Amino acid sequence: MREKAYLREVGLRDGLQMVRCILSSDRKVEWCREEAAAGVGEIEVTSFVPPKIVPQFADAVEVAERTGKIGGFRLSALVPNLKGAERGFELGVHKLNYVLSASETHNLANVRRSTEDSIEDFRRIVQARAHRGLGLVALGAGVATAFGCTMEGAVDEGRVVEIIDRLLDAGADEIIVADTVGYGNPAQVRRLMGRVVERCGDVPVAAHFHDTRGLGLANVTAAVEAGVRRFDASLGGLGGCPFAPGATGNIDSEDCAFLLESMGFDTGIDIDALIALRQKVETWLPDEKFYGMVAKAGLPKHYRPASALAA
Amino acid sequence: MREKAYLREVGLRDGLQMVRCILSSDRKVEWCREEAAAGVGEIEVTSFVPPKIVPQFADAVEVAERTGKIGGFRLSALVPNLKGAERGFELGVHKLNYVLSASETHNLANVRRSTEDSIEDFRRIVQARAHRGLGLVALGAGVATAFGCTMEGAVDEGRVVEIIDRLLDAGADEIIVADTVGYGNPAQVRRLMGRVVERCGDVPVAAHFHDTRGLGLANVTAAVEAGVRRFDASLGGLGGCPFAPGATGNIDSEDCAFLLESMGFDTGIDIDALIALRQKVETWLPDEKFYGMVAKAGLPKHYRPASALAA
Repeated sequence: MREKAYLREVGLRDGLQMVRCILSSDRKVEWCREEAAAGVGEIEVTSFVPPKIVPQFADAVEVAERTGKIGGFRLSALVPNLKGAERGFELGVHKLNYVLSASETHNLANVRRSTEDSIEDFRRIVQARAHRGLGLVALGAGVATAFGCTMEGAVDEGRVVEIIDRLLDAGADEIIVADTVGYGNPAQVRRLMGRVVERCGDVPVAAHFHDTRGLGLANVTAAVEAGVRRFDASLGGLGGCPFAPGATGNIDSEDCAFLLESMGFDTGIDIDALIALRQKVETWLPDEKFYGMVAKAGLPKHYRPASALAA
Repeated sequence: MREKAYLREVGLRDGLQMVRCILSSDRKVEWCREEAAAGVGEIEVTSFVPPKIVPQFADAVEVAERTGKIGGFRLSALVPNLKGAERGFELGVHKLNYVLSASETHNLANVRRSTEDSIEDFRRIVQARAHRGLGLVALGAGVATAFGCTMEGAVDEGRVVEIIDRLLDAGADEIIVADTVGYGNPAQVRRLMGRVVERCGDVPVAAHFHDTRGLGLANVTAAVEAGVRRFDASLGGLGGCPFAPGATGNIDSEDCAFLLESMGFDTGIDIDALIALRQKVETWLPDEKFYGMVAKAGLPKHYRPASALAA
């Protein structure tokens, strides 16, 4: 029995956020269906933000409704505030991932309020869930710019841990620690994630890394050492942040799945199926740069997928 | 005082080996000069192989002689056999890196003899050095396909350790463990490199990783954990192996230097100077694909180079 590790696909959200063309709802649903069929356990299908801010997610309700009928995976959506969370509650999304920034300047640019106000808003979201009696809807709480910020530079680790304590106290079901701008390094990741994992106890910890400076999978390796078993990744390494210039590229889903599987973890993912989907999505987004190496080189000759090992 | 880590540039050798055009000797010398000026401590400037096999190295003697006049760095060259080593001895190269493959099939394809014969040849090289009284010329011994082979699949770790024991016994001054085809993963790297570091005692251990499947810097991180402090890398991630289909791409020098520096090691390298050189080399090789992320994204805002910290 191999230990389990979990990959959350964020390409439909973080990936598409920075893409120049609007992908049709049909294709978003097809992407989600095939990714679920490849064995990815959680898929962040959209973001409940105002369409004026991110036109790509003008079809958020339709995408959430249609992907909700696929089944077989945990359907999540990003929410920046209570209003977004209310939409998620109404649509029956399984999990909502709320995000705020440890960097005040980044939080202000991203959601136009202080980090403290964002923490209070998360508390209101947890209360709203209770009022609606929606105990089964999970609430993830993400801390962006946890490893540094393009605007502020270094971010204090003590402040990150303090924010996480407050989110745990408010009732978060998962803590997501994000290197939004690709500043983190493995030594820093191991140190901070070690503290976070200890702090979180039974609450699962996820890491969200960008490969902006090539250290994405090195940081995953360090986070694994620190006890993290949940990772955000994006098909073809699509992604970025509008307030982090040059910060394109989440870690690549195919490479991340390969990394975790080759280290002996059971991700449940059929990597060849993921590569086939990536190749299809590349044809849908011909103007985007796709990253990731395993899709080009193929799996090693002696590589045996999880299903073969389990058989 | 930060702990030191060492990067060896192999772009002029492993990188150019797979490049389709022949780079002029003038440009090879310029590359070497600027890389030394950027603070890279060891540069593998060429390979003493028959020009019929690798036409790129037909100017090996000229390149070794001219780069030998630059100074300020350790000049090394790859040698596949005693004949190549004799040329290195005559030219006054500081260090010769000898390579054999743990995989018999790969060794046969690469140098047309058994791994055992290659080990014996290394013994003869050490004897030839002694006969010439060239005690100051260092002899590195590399084990290729140590983490797997495109031809044989898995490679037995016990066999790798056994080969390394024989190379140490023969008198190797450095052991280089190479993931020639990009099959290694961080768990495997940590396990094998831990055994090798223990075995080598005072003899330094270097790791040579390819980024074929995206795990190059994750493997560096794991090797660092295992105690390795010397890493081969190639400017722009150029490189590959003629007997490993699709195995393009050594780990990228700029990203590797950034990784090590950001983890707190002192590499002595000016990363901005390395990026500037890479951009120049890109114009010399317009048909090649260059990898690496930090050259595109730039250093983080709060990043302080080694010299600034030391000041």
